[in-house]
Amino acid sequence: MRECESARCQIAECRDALRRLALERLGCARDNQPYIVPIYFAYESDRLYGFATFGKKIDWMRSNSRVCVQADEVLSNDNWISIAVLGRYEELSDTPAYASERGKAQSLLKKRSVWWQTGCVASNVRSQSETPSPAFYCVRIEEISGLRASAQGGPVRVR
Amino acid sequence: MRECESARCQIAECRDALRRLALERLGCARDNQPYIVPIYFAYESDRLYGFATFGKKIDWMRSNSRVCVQADEVLSNDNWISIAVLGRYEELSDTPAYASERGKAQSLLKKRSVWWQTGCVASNVRSQSETPSPAFYCVRIEEISGLRASAQGGPVRVR
Repeated sequence: MRECESARCQIAECRDALRRLALERLGCARDNQPYIVPIYFAYESDRLYGFATFGKKIDWMRSNSRVCVQADEVLSNDNWISIAVLGRYEELSDTPAYASERGKAQSLLKKRSVWWQTGCVASNVRSQSETPSPAFYCVRIEEISGLRASAQGGPVRVR
Repeated sequence: MRECESARCQIAECRDALRRLALERLGCARDNQPYIVPIYFAYESDRLYGFATFGKKIDWMRSNSRVCVQADEVLSNDNWISIAVLGRYEELSDTPAYASERGKAQSLLKKRSVWWQTGCVASNVRSQSETPSPAFYCVRIEEISGLRASAQGGPVRVR
């Protein structure tokens, strides 16, 4: 039973980190070519909510929904945590079917002061004249793992 | 001619960032599933040099050499730079053919005080008893692009 408690505790540490950290990295892939961008996420339960304007990463995730989200927190060289989430991209399209989820995404993201920035900056450099079309989306989490280095306790894999 | 000068200057900014930033994120993919890990790199010319112990990412990069390396520097919410490198993984095996490149990788990485850490921590949690087998490798850079947000000048795409 101690092993089960320990496993839950370790997953809890991953989830705590996802709640705490807003700036993360989103990895998508097309034809087995990975591509990484920094992005702001809001985490709740089994999903990460994000915002972007249409461009390369949305194109890629529409053609292949498999993604990885990585978050890390480096307090010092020997005290850091890194979390990797594997999951599926799902666009929260502006339709009645997604109204509730889009509302939830907006509400959670609004708590992040700069949640819109990474998406809007990419849009601004694509075109100075067009109005950006925002895309809200979520990542349905399938697997969470984490690695922590600690000066006190040594490295620990969190899974 | 101004456009050419401007283009070179923008690439130079990406290269400066790669020289300055040591902690980056490495993305690899298998069966179109991306996976991201934090890693220390040393940059020189058209290559990034890294170190790891054998595990998931080496397995994946051996089966698919297409990788993405992402580096960012966040000075404030409206002053940050993010660089994305697309390239090919190449293992610097412990053979005479790679002796020179391995020496170069070791020499460049030694200038980074904690270059060995991300690789060794992953190895430690895999096995507390086995001696880790180090793998030096490089990423042959095929494409560099970058995005910068600046409070003064607005967002700029660097390519």
